[in-house]
Amino acid sequence: MSLQIEIQNVRHVLIRLEETIIFALIERAQFLRNHAVYEAGRFGSVLEGESLCGYLLLECERTHAKVRRYTSPDEHPFFANLPPPVLPPIGYSNNPLIPNQININNQIRTIYETKILDRVTRTGDDQQYGSTAVCDVSCLQALSKRIHYGKFVAESKFRHAAPALQAAMAAGDGSAILAAITDTAVENDVLSRVHSKARTYTNEFKQAAPQMPLQPDAIRSIYAEIIIPLNKQVQVEYLLLRHSLVVCPPLTP
Amino acid sequence: MSLQIEIQNVRHVLIRLEETIIFALIERAQFLRNHAVYEAGRFGSVLEGESLCGYLLLECERTHAKVRRYTSPDEHPFFANLPPPVLPPIGYSNNPLIPNQININNQIRTIYETKILDRVTRTGDDQQYGSTAVCDVSCLQALSKRIHYGKFVAESKFRHAAPALQAAMAAGDGSAILAAITDTAVENDVLSRVHSKARTYTNEFKQAAPQMPLQPDAIRSIYAEIIIPLNKQVQVEYLLLRHSLVVCPPLTP
Repeated sequence: MSLQIEIQNVRHVLIRLEETIIFALIERAQFLRNHAVYEAGRFGSVLEGESLCGYLLLECERTHAKVRRYTSPDEHPFFANLPPPVLPPIGYSNNPLIPNQININNQIRTIYETKILDRVTRTGDDQQYGSTAVCDVSCLQALSKRIHYGKFVAESKFRHAAPALQAAMAAGDGSAILAAITDTAVENDVLSRVHSKARTYTNEFKQAAPQMPLQPDAIRSIYAEIIIPLNKQVQVEYLLLRHSLVVCPPLTP
Repeated sequence: MSLQIEIQNVRHVLIRLEETIIFALIERAQFLRNHAVYEAGRFGSVLEGESLCGYLLLECERTHAKVRRYTSPDEHPFFANLPPPVLPPIGYSNNPLIPNQININNQIRTIYETKILDRVTRTGDDQQYGSTAVCDVSCLQALSKRIHYGKFVAESKFRHAAPALQAAMAAGDGSAILAAITDTAVENDVLSRVHSKARTYTNEFKQAAPQMPLQPDAIRSIYAEIIIPLNKQVQVEYLLLRHSLVVCPPLTP
């Protein structure tokens, strides 16, 4: 079945997603900031009240929902009220997670549109709105996957919980959980690796597009200031839920 | 307006698309061959008679058609009968091409499914069908764009046509046109550059996925044996049409 949701593969999946995220950001960087793409109602009422970016994302999610993307424990939609799958369900018998509804995609989308894009693109409008929004969908989906993968990271940490984490969870103390799951050395390893990959990829790319605005430092900072903190936020939410479910198992009727 | 369709940008766009194609193939390579994704009817009648890959491509094109992707002279759909745009039309006043209906996407899709995938993936089935098909859509769209960009290449060659090309066009001789537009030195430059990029990207990637089956030689061969020949096929078709339109301009009523 899906190797991506097996707990021993967590680290491998996280490293692999670095490529996906960096590639997606590089693709987006070939277009300008294009504010019009993110304005709800900018193109009248035909896009269901959404911005062009939001509309393409919504339509993409409708299609992917039909082929059961969001039944996978490592996938999270940005929109509610998606159509049901048309394919028969897959059993995720190897799903290590507890049942949960944690989904911070609204937050991810806001941060993407207000903070990430300014680090990735040059200001201006090149009218390449459709191509821009297509790239945005890839970026948002990759970021969402990486950030929500915190659930698997958290489950893994829970299963090998050190006393500090056990105590923080027992106290239901989010700040203490955050402190307990934070490993600065590991984070620095991630940031060094991401920076090195970003340097390689953007360097190679510059031969084709000397104007490429995306700098390795920007990609590193997106990891340091956005992706890693949001991933840890998901971890904390999951561990708070994890603890409450252990302490208070559902009543048997 | 769209810089991508201005004739002086042809070379830049072609080089830039190398990244897009290599990235897309690398993403696809993380999943196995997954034959089931390409079998029409494999998932019953719910996918409109299409394979899972075909269905996702069709749904994607329906969405993109609504936001006018296929009104751009450098975009070509794989499917007919797509919905009309819901956005107002864009005028492509800088479009250098003559009106034409050249579209070899059926051929591209067949070659992708029967020849390219075997060079990119390992055999087997990992049941990651949805993720696989999502990657396929990116690959097919990138390949289609690169191959149909032959129209812009051809238009540029027409505008600076050497005597051999002029004579071949005047004779309506496809084989002679093919010979006249073939520049082996330029092709070798492309192949060297693609090989070098593929080496850089796949090398970096191997740290995350030592099992990565995609070799730089395979990417080079896909360019040498598929992308460049199909691009030249489009060029020949375009130049044959270009000539006929010059010789026989439309009758004025």
